[in-house]
Amino acid sequence: MQGDQHKQHISGQFNAELDAMKQHLLEMGGLVEQQMGLTMDALLHRDSGQAAAVIASDKEINAMELQIDEECSRILALRQPAASDLRLVLAVAKSTTDLERIGDEATKIARQAIKLSELPPSTGNSTELRQIGRHVSQMLRDALDSFARLDVRKAIEVVVDDGSVDTEYDSAMRSLVTLMMEDARNISGVLHEMWALRGLERVGDHATNIAEQVIYLVRGMDVRHMKPAELQDLLSEDAS
Amino acid sequence: MQGDQHKQHISGQFNAELDAMKQHLLEMGGLVEQQMGLTMDALLHRDSGQAAAVIASDKEINAMELQIDEECSRILALRQPAASDLRLVLAVAKSTTDLERIGDEATKIARQAIKLSELPPSTGNSTELRQIGRHVSQMLRDALDSFARLDVRKAIEVVVDDGSVDTEYDSAMRSLVTLMMEDARNISGVLHEMWALRGLERVGDHATNIAEQVIYLVRGMDVRHMKPAELQDLLSEDAS
Repeated sequence: MQGDQHKQHISGQFNAELDAMKQHLLEMGGLVEQQMGLTMDALLHRDSGQAAAVIASDKEINAMELQIDEECSRILALRQPAASDLRLVLAVAKSTTDLERIGDEATKIARQAIKLSELPPSTGNSTELRQIGRHVSQMLRDALDSFARLDVRKAIEVVVDDGSVDTEYDSAMRSLVTLMMEDARNISGVLHEMWALRGLERVGDHATNIAEQVIYLVRGMDVRHMKPAELQDLLSEDAS
Repeated sequence: MQGDQHKQHISGQFNAELDAMKQHLLEMGGLVEQQMGLTMDALLHRDSGQAAAVIASDKEINAMELQIDEECSRILALRQPAASDLRLVLAVAKSTTDLERIGDEATKIARQAIKLSELPPSTGNSTELRQIGRHVSQMLRDALDSFARLDVRKAIEVVVDDGSVDTEYDSAMRSLVTLMMEDARNISGVLHEMWALRGLERVGDHATNIAEQVIYLVRGMDVRHMKPAELQDLLSEDAS
């Protein structure tokens, strides 16, 4: 009996460690979401002060990445998790990298916001930037929600949704190229908007990577590099 | 005695598995290096046939990523590695992601090469593209060499070197912007060169990530987000 109690105690501790690790990932995700919100504000209002705040907060995100990675390594070394516990640790380890990269993109977009704030206000293309910014922020939120609730259906939707961000991106990019060709005085400003747009598109890619980790975690199936049609099939299977 | 022999047998098998996993990473690296070489050729000669071959070969790289990741998970689940063995598995798992992303960048650069092949040959800026292409390909080779030989000194050099790629990138980007402003007819061509340049700069970032994993693996020290000066200190420590 005492042996059993000891085992239960150990396994209770182990579960608490796994929960804490997942919780830290979600906290890091929350911070990155907040950073993305501030970045979009800075970009759309060409607010250099806000942009500088975003750049400064990137340190905190980097520190969280290192801390969570260390937690994952410690759990792997000391607890030797198997099956779904192992998948959880690996999914967390991969997802921190993507969250950190979203933080990097936010920093780069904030730098473009600072450059834009130094230029005379141009016609620009803020409608399309706003739209894509909202879209990828929603994808990030959904990816993190799907991780929190292990909601594979929502995760699949995020992955499928990435295709429509790419379409929006192409269309926004075309209209920026047109603006540039219409008037050479637009070139500098439009270039900064293009880099910001590119950064937003990459945020969508990283949100997708996180959602793919959720599918791997829940289903034990690696869906990276699957075609959208195959994912759609997975979605209808899941509904049935 | 029989028990000892059994243990030795198991540990021999385990070492063989670790060696095979590392070997597969290096093979994937070799393929990605080759793909980068073809991409640069396609870009500099605006050779759409070669570019299409690069895009087609990306599937093979994606498949290797999935296979190596599976190998890592299997080793973690069945062998429960500790200390430096665990660091090796984790470094391999992180590095495959970076190699796969380099493959993605090569594909994106190849797409720009196809677009460029459809345009009338412009003045362009191929000297600077060639130079950065060589530089980041060298960084990738050095990062993989440092992984093969666990050469931490070379790995630190790669990380430090990334700063000079960024400087070259900024200067190349400025001269492309000038070309664009000089003559609006250059806009389309120069934009494709800009995207290619951006892709090359990211290849340098991913090579740096791989080198950082080598430092983590050998020294057990996470150097991500360290300042260049701190890394220089590490380099002089290593020399002493």
